[in-house]
Amino acid sequence: MTGLQPADNAADNPAYSALEARFRRLYALREAAAVLHWDMSAMMPTGGAEARTEQLAALDVTCHEILADQAMAGMFAEAEDESGRLDPWRAANLREMRREWLHATALDASLVEALSRACKRCEFAWREARPANDFAAVLPSLKELLGLVRQAAEAKADALGLSPYDALLDEYEPGGRSERIDAVFAPLEGFLPNFLDAVLAKQADAGAPLVPQGPFPRETQEALGRRLMEIVGFDFASGRLDVSLHPFCGGVPDDVRITTRYDEADFITALMGVLHETGHALYERGLPADWRLQPVGNARGMGMHESQSLLVEMQTCRSREFIAFAAPLLREAFGGSGPAWETENLIRLYNKVEPGFIRVDADEVTYPAHVILRYRLEKAMIAGELSLEELPGAWNEGLHDLLGLTPPDDRLGCLQDIHWYDGAWGYFPTYTLGAMTAAQLFAAAKAALPEIPEAIAKGDFAPLMGWLKQNVHEQGSFLTTDELLTQATGKALDPAIFMAHLKARYLD
Amino acid sequence: MTGLQPADNAADNPAYSALEARFRRLYALREAAAVLHWDMSAMMPTGGAEARTEQLAALDVTCHEILADQAMAGMFAEAEDESGRLDPWRAANLREMRREWLHATALDASLVEALSRACKRCEFAWREARPANDFAAVLPSLKELLGLVRQAAEAKADALGLSPYDALLDEYEPGGRSERIDAVFAPLEGFLPNFLDAVLAKQADAGAPLVPQGPFPRETQEALGRRLMEIVGFDFASGRLDVSLHPFCGGVPDDVRITTRYDEADFITALMGVLHETGHALYERGLPADWRLQPVGNARGMGMHESQSLLVEMQTCRSREFIAFAAPLLREAFGGSGPAWETENLIRLYNKVEPGFIRVDADEVTYPAHVILRYRLEKAMIAGELSLEELPGAWNEGLHDLLGLTPPDDRLGCLQDIHWYDGAWGYFPTYTLGAMTAAQLFAAAKAALPEIPEAIAKGDFAPLMGWLKQNVHEQGSFLTTDELLTQATGKALDPAIFMAHLKARYLD
Repeated sequence: MTGLQPADNAADNPAYSALEARFRRLYALREAAAVLHWDMSAMMPTGGAEARTEQLAALDVTCHEILADQAMAGMFAEAEDESGRLDPWRAANLREMRREWLHATALDASLVEALSRACKRCEFAWREARPANDFAAVLPSLKELLGLVRQAAEAKADALGLSPYDALLDEYEPGGRSERIDAVFAPLEGFLPNFLDAVLAKQADAGAPLVPQGPFPRETQEALGRRLMEIVGFDFASGRLDVSLHPFCGGVPDDVRITTRYDEADFITALMGVLHETGHALYERGLPADWRLQPVGNARGMGMHESQSLLVEMQTCRSREFIAFAAPLLREAFGGSGPAWETENLIRLYNKVEPGFIRVDADEVTYPAHVILRYRLEKAMIAGELSLEELPGAWNEGLHDLLGLTPPDDRLGCLQDIHWYDGAWGYFPTYTLGAMTAAQLFAAAKAALPEIPEAIAKGDFAPLMGWLKQNVHEQGSFLTTDELLTQATGKALDPAIFMAHLKARYLD
Repeated sequence: MTGLQPADNAADNPAYSALEARFRRLYALREAAAVLHWDMSAMMPTGGAEARTEQLAALDVTCHEILADQAMAGMFAEAEDESGRLDPWRAANLREMRREWLHATALDASLVEALSRACKRCEFAWREARPANDFAAVLPSLKELLGLVRQAAEAKADALGLSPYDALLDEYEPGGRSERIDAVFAPLEGFLPNFLDAVLAKQADAGAPLVPQGPFPRETQEALGRRLMEIVGFDFASGRLDVSLHPFCGGVPDDVRITTRYDEADFITALMGVLHETGHALYERGLPADWRLQPVGNARGMGMHESQSLLVEMQTCRSREFIAFAAPLLREAFGGSGPAWETENLIRLYNKVEPGFIRVDADEVTYPAHVILRYRLEKAMIAGELSLEELPGAWNEGLHDLLGLTPPDDRLGCLQDIHWYDGAWGYFPTYTLGAMTAAQLFAAAKAALPEIPEAIAKGDFAPLMGWLKQNVHEQGSFLTTDELLTQATGKALDPAIFMAHLKARYLD
């Protein structure tokens, strides 16, 4: 299913085998760093910050040296000369190795170091500027950082034969190209404004859903979260659930660490957050076990990763079937009764649409507007067509065009997300690529296995997860994203499927 | 106090500076491994074992490559040629770097790898053999391991100019030599049998102390443990307390991770365990901050480390003064009242002496007998004077000679400790060196600051900890163990001080 065991048939290609050994070490060190990152967010006392920075820097430098070693070019040349002797999984592994190596070696060491320092400085400034609503305070370090990112984009563009923006995008979304993204975003941009009006009108007619009143004890939320995680398929013998300020899915495939945070006044956010991260976790856990610690055993990209979390959270766990299944569990856990706890009310509550300023709080319908705004702006910044001085104004205008809202300040505007302040231009579109991919995969899964909705209504995720494991998780990075999607669903990414999903959920 | 900042005056000695940079990376990677080890014991789900083994192996190999790099010999030669230009702390750092490098490079890579595999195999066999009371089952892998350890001892003996046993000992106890250990253990061996009889007779006269009856809820034990840790000086902004099967002190100096385990029928073991590990933690935390990630900034050795845990646990926290201070806190925490909870009874309970089979359960008086037994046996094994077939018999005879007890089976005999089954010959004597060092340091601290006992009776550890920080913790590895002890206490290790402590505590 997942190809041959590494080292089965690579004996004829010693250069390939040598590359595999190097990448094995590289990936084991990166996994060490992943566990240390989790610890930093979930466990580490504040006094450990400086030591942890040193530990992670030592790992980073060591990993970079493995990829930047002069001998690698020769090994790739030799391995590729003899690549006819490799089976398809090893050939794919070699292709993915080269991709990583090209990204790593496109930048010279001095630029890597300057970028790393500028990122730290800018992120630090942003952590103070955001609560203070002071864009001017972070502007100088953001300017320095953007300057270096644009240099890096040029260098990667040369090495990869792509445009500068696409060269950045390619790191998060292998094979992702802005021309394709423009093409799949365009119908959505045309569709959303009228659709949003219609949804808001329909929800206004129905009246606001009732909100169950807390407090909802943290322990109860956590116990319920764990129960639902297990129902979806999370195995606590191969992972943990803990608390951190910013929820994430970390760790390594056989030891996935997901985190959340609890608000005793509201249980929906943590619960849906936990289910979202469970989708990420199941993808990691389902990656081809024979290819641990090799590039081809990696998740396919950030868009595909997000599709797995949204498939669990949005496509499944906010569906009528799942909420009908979960409602009695919620009532039992929190001792809830009365109209606010009725299934129909909970369905409306879980699917409430309301335009707002903050991306991470956005519902499924308005979320793409937040992404499209950032995608437009970041392309313009990398192209040198939007100066950072113009960013706050352009942001506010853009949000007004897309959602009819103007942020009252930059805290609710261009200071809200860490991405750019941490050097990550080219990441944002993957959120909406993920949402569209999730809709397309879910539709294909239901077409292949029509019993899926009924099973979910009984809390049985086995049919859905079996299909995903086979068609997505176990594929690792064997196929390109387009190939994977075509193999699993019969076509490349098609925004019409996502729009059909939105219409069915919010207007029917 | 702790010397100059690294890089202050090393400009005249570029080879030294280059070594410092390499050791900085080495130590940062080792710190990463230390955090991963803690996680493995305290957090990791079982499914993570294989991945974690790979992560730690990648770090080990990377660290070994840093030390084994051919270029190091030249760097040491150059740095030592110009060592006259180094200030005393850098000179000490260079000395410690060389020590580590000699230990690491004495063994060729194939022996390192064979040892690592044999350790894993033998430890695995031991984990099954111990509960099954089946020494014969672990004998083949222990034989293989001892064979390799003896090869390693020979190789290190050549490189370091020491006897094979001393070459192993030197890794745990830098500068430690069996001739010196024999000399300080001999008076103790003469003293203990009659002394033990006298203590047992005195305690029999007084009748057995009453044992407070539980259950003692885990949460209460933990809260009380944290409170006492803070009283002793532990700072939770720079460390954590968690649970693991085998209590230990791990992590890194500014982020110390200590663990314990709880038994709801008995609060004394966990509480004293936590205070023991707190002593280790305060040593790590107090190491010279200017020399983090350099060998000279390390703890002086395992004997000194154990002295700091025993100074807190045995010298201080089992003292009349501390128990009188802690007794009301215990009564308050557990709602205890009646004769079992009276201070005098608790003092007798905390200082009860009773010969037994198991080292880790032994009291302060009988503990040295367990160590002396193992020290005699392991010297004979390394010298080839005791075959492993003879080990169980020699163990049982030896314990009978020392404590008058004969283990009924190997589970309570030579299978009880992991050390040899994990390849650690040469470690055991450090426990009793630590106990003697603790007594000597505590006596010197009280001579310098006579208010210490009175302060402890009020729960004020500041005078004692201030003295230890200055005289031990902040010294790192600047001095040799003998120099440190002589500077702090006026003389090298003197077993008479430990024996005087035992007499004062158990007979007066």
